[in-house]
Amino acid sequence: MFFRKLESDLRDGPRVCVAVAGAAGEEIFSSLRLSEKLGITEALLVGEKKTAMEGADRAGMECFSILEAEGDEAAAEKAVEAVRDGTADILMKGRVSTAVLLKAVLSDKTVFSRGKLLSHLAVLEAPDGHILGITDGGMNISPDVDQKRVILESAVEAFRALGISLPKVAVLAAMEKENPKIPESIDAGKLSRLQDSGEISDCIVEGPMALDLAVTPEACRLKNYKGKIQGDANILLAPDISAGNILAKSLVHLGGWRGGGLVVGAGRPIVLLSRSDTAEEKYNSILLAIALYRKPQPLSSSLISQHPI
Amino acid sequence: MFFRKLESDLRDGPRVCVAVAGAAGEEIFSSLRLSEKLGITEALLVGEKKTAMEGADRAGMECFSILEAEGDEAAAEKAVEAVRDGTADILMKGRVSTAVLLKAVLSDKTVFSRGKLLSHLAVLEAPDGHILGITDGGMNISPDVDQKRVILESAVEAFRALGISLPKVAVLAAMEKENPKIPESIDAGKLSRLQDSGEISDCIVEGPMALDLAVTPEACRLKNYKGKIQGDANILLAPDISAGNILAKSLVHLGGWRGGGLVVGAGRPIVLLSRSDTAEEKYNSILLAIALYRKPQPLSSSLISQHPI
Repeated sequence: MFFRKLESDLRDGPRVCVAVAGAAGEEIFSSLRLSEKLGITEALLVGEKKTAMEGADRAGMECFSILEAEGDEAAAEKAVEAVRDGTADILMKGRVSTAVLLKAVLSDKTVFSRGKLLSHLAVLEAPDGHILGITDGGMNISPDVDQKRVILESAVEAFRALGISLPKVAVLAAMEKENPKIPESIDAGKLSRLQDSGEISDCIVEGPMALDLAVTPEACRLKNYKGKIQGDANILLAPDISAGNILAKSLVHLGGWRGGGLVVGAGRPIVLLSRSDTAEEKYNSILLAIALYRKPQPLSSSLISQHPI
Repeated sequence: MFFRKLESDLRDGPRVCVAVAGAAGEEIFSSLRLSEKLGITEALLVGEKKTAMEGADRAGMECFSILEAEGDEAAAEKAVEAVRDGTADILMKGRVSTAVLLKAVLSDKTVFSRGKLLSHLAVLEAPDGHILGITDGGMNISPDVDQKRVILESAVEAFRALGISLPKVAVLAAMEKENPKIPESIDAGKLSRLQDSGEISDCIVEGPMALDLAVTPEACRLKNYKGKIQGDANILLAPDISAGNILAKSLVHLGGWRGGGLVVGAGRPIVLLSRSDTAEEKYNSILLAIALYRKPQPLSSSLISQHPI
């Protein structure tokens, strides 16, 4: 199983310090306690001192320090600052809002900001252990084709760090033909051709394609589909935030899949989850972030940049 | 389990004659053979005589007749005509294209056309037997709010015929707040208020909401969400064709769900499936169509109409 294998792969190596912006919420402390027990993290709890102390105590945490901050904005800023000055290594969203955290991240021009569009990547594991990346169901509402390219390349970079050297990316739509009435189908064709011409590298890109062709070899056979991916995609690039969000949540809440989520595209991975995520999902996300932090895999193509959020 | 219960519920009653436009394709004959054996259908195979005869023979069909037609358009027109003149009761898409079949359907102004927008409804069953309707992942690309209302009401009418007297409809988005940058979230709020004010009746409507709140009571608790549906939706109204298509295919191809699909909104249900659907999915769709044909449940609200495809 992917996440259990990741756990054992990550056991060796020094502890990574996780700065938690807004140290409150039972699931957050529980997830940090799990990764601390594995020997891979220590925590810098940024927020209200009493809340942080009580939470850490209740979860039985041992490897942590507290950095006091009053209010969400100060917690976000101090957590980002701690990563910038080397006190901490990676950032995790605690109980501050996503908007507040990202404002602090984007204001940093040294460690986090690479001038790239940030995006959300969910990495989900099927009951049979197979994993799929889904992007972007969390940050970019309706990305254009240039933004989709950045989102795609950030996901590819993450999957390479997770050990998949040539990720297969399916650019999803409701159908296989480009249709001018359906802008995402046109974008998908463009992205696929950018890979054909070598402008996007280190991955296989195919689209537009419906989900069945992306993940089911049998559907490819029944539809007599002659493509490159043939039902074996690693990453699914969704048309927009709604489709990506619905897809990831359908697997987790209706399909029995587990996993985690990250913000990618910044100089460091950022653990960012929903309030409805469990401690296990937060823990899995920490594992993913550590893997990306320890084994960054820059792409051979030059990433396009300068897309403000 | 829903589909097995539907099977036994439908055993009583006279056979329903299914006109198949384009009688070719192994899965089509196999699905018709299954419903014929159950005693609920006989088939009118419209298309190339030799192909129809051989297919029926190979599947072991007994209750069928053949209506010869040359080419897809003729097959579609003759199948629609057979329903109109009472030779057949319901329509099933065989090996003609969806566009050709719908052209024939829309040209009929007596039996099929109620002047309403047609839409696709998938009815899917979880491994635990729970069912969910997903609409519209098959026909309407990017419906506006008035069209979404028709799509919603057609799905509600179908679910009432399936025995759920007050279906709960979750209007999906990526979030719970209306956001002017995300048109589907605004549409969702409008539809929800139409139900609040009584303009949409015979159902509960709530939105915008992310999928976790629509289907997971635990997510509602964790997010402290005070809504009407609380994780127990019967029907999921998708923002557009891409999201609906991806959602339905994710459940079937990645979540282990089974089910079928229909075109609703016409005077008669139409069995319409994808080439990658199995004989079982086609058979389930026939069961759904028979249920809707035998127990139509007109809504108490006056359906708005006049939306051309």
